[in-house]
Amino acid sequence: MLINTRQVEIEFGDCDPAGIVFYPNYFRMFDASTAYLFEAALGIKKIAWVKKYGIVGIAMVDTGAKFSKPSRFGDVVTIETSITELRRSSFVVGHKLFNGGELAIEAHEVRVWTGHDPDNAGRIKSLPIPQDVVDALSR
Amino acid sequence: MLINTRQVEIEFGDCDPAGIVFYPNYFRMFDASTAYLFEAALGIKKIAWVKKYGIVGIAMVDTGAKFSKPSRFGDVVTIETSITELRRSSFVVGHKLFNGGELAIEAHEVRVWTGHDPDNAGRIKSLPIPQDVVDALSR
Amino acid sequence: MLINTRQVEIEFGDCDPAGIVFYPNYFRMFDASTAYLFEAALGIKKIAWVKKYGIVGIAMVDTGAKFSKPSRFGDVVTIETSITELRRSSFVVGHKLFNGGELAIEAHEVRVWTGHDPDNAGRIKSLPIPQDVVDALSR
Amino acid sequence: MLINTRQVEIEFGDCDPAGIVFYPNYFRMFDASTAYLFEAALGIKKIAWVKKYGIVGIAMVDTGAKFSKPSRFGDVVTIETSITELRRSSFVVGHKLFNGGELAIEAHEVRVWTGHDPDNAGRIKSLPIPQDVVDALSR
Repeated sequence: MLINTRQVEIEFGDCDPAGIVFYPNYFRMFDASTAYLFEAALGIKKIAWVKKYGIVGIAMVDTGAKFSKPSRFGDVVTIETSITELRRSSFVVGHKLFNGGELAIEAHEVRVWTGHDPDNAGRIKSLPIPQDVVDALSR
Repeated sequence: MLINTRQVEIEFGDCDPAGIVFYPNYFRMFDASTAYLFEAALGIKKIAWVKKYGIVGIAMVDTGAKFSKPSRFGDVVTIETSITELRRSSFVVGHKLFNGGELAIEAHEVRVWTGHDPDNAGRIKSLPIPQDVVDALSR
Repeated sequence: MLINTRQVEIEFGDCDPAGIVFYPNYFRMFDASTAYLFEAALGIKKIAWVKKYGIVGIAMVDTGAKFSKPSRFGDVVTIETSITELRRSSFVVGHKLFNGGELAIEAHEVRVWTGHDPDNAGRIKSLPIPQDVVDALSR
Repeated sequence: MLINTRQVEIEFGDCDPAGIVFYPNYFRMFDASTAYLFEAALGIKKIAWVKKYGIVGIAMVDTGAKFSKPSRFGDVVTIETSITELRRSSFVVGHKLFNGGELAIEAHEVRVWTGHDPDNAGRIKSLPIPQDVVDALSR
């Protein structure tokens, strides 16, 4: 399976009065990491693949994270992101965040390939992931 | 002119490693304060008046703030918001944030009533503020 | 067990290009909800109880959320927060977010009562939750 | 005067329901840009120079921005940051954000070199900017 790795520098504004990253900001980083994984797989940016496939997005239905080590501003962390499971219209993403070589956070996301419901204007529904997307993510 | 006053409790996650509000978060509070001012004037929420008038929004073209006193989590601050100038297709908003009775921040915004350009699909343009909106904001 | 319920209005700036809450912002709301639960239990604000007990905070070690219904700006959601498990130095918090009477999100947090390590200056460690805090949360 | 230039990719989560950057997020980017300018000048990261000089930080007293062009997720913008004025204990920072070669935002910040008040425990006060910092920023 494709793994996308990127580095993120923790900034002052990511941190809370305890001097460590305010944990909701990790989910912001992970959301972007998933977008970058798809960009690596599909060769185009999120704004382009959302348009290309005519979808609303990849809706989050379940996410979680285990935190074993805090990070501080100035730390440059590494986030490894991969698809850990591909289903018909949903998929599971895994993120590992490393700080100083140590695993600091492990997170998962269950997301749904979400489009407009052809039978109900204004409603959204889960749709099968297109085969070329499945193929690109399975490399 | 209409003044809208609201109270906001500063939360832990609004604050930075210095223990005070990370200033970009004030702009988030001010953006909401402007929406609440319009809600007070028009009697409907932003999501409804954007739809009612068929606009894209009230685009920000210029904002600024002067900070004279920091706020900490647990502080309950008061934000007073008013229209300080109404022009044909733009307007100026003023915000005063008080903490413990003292003026802590003064901010301004210049915003434009922004809609779709009828002559250029996909483009946006400034539009005259509808008379009933002008009237409601002038009360 | 004590349950704290609060209402939160979803703001424009909480939402993403899909027009729904950008999910990391829910974790910001939940973090504040946990602080408000402790305030309800202890009768003083987070900034005061962190100081009173001489701790660094209540460090997050594990959090997760299941999303079944999106929320939009203007929606006023209800968040119900309670302690679902109290251990020696850690505890589990549960959040239920309702929108229009329907359960929209269920989330949990495992947090640790975290203080300075008396044997290692500059280090932090988990500490037993004080009995009066246990009692106040068990009401 | 030293100019620091960096590129920032606009992410989905930076954008609002209008599909463009929610403007408070620009201030988050600018705050980081100022930290990176100091890092370029001083050769060490913010967390290190705050410690080295024993200060609380570089408190914001006045900031503002003019927005002439929106940015969308996937856009890679360039932020040019420089000191435009150096005073005894304060300084002015200028940011120019370019998107697709066009100037999209111009912003300024007035910040104060802020430390602990030696005469008032627990209070902060403006302090003269150390000569080596002045020199490094004046290159």
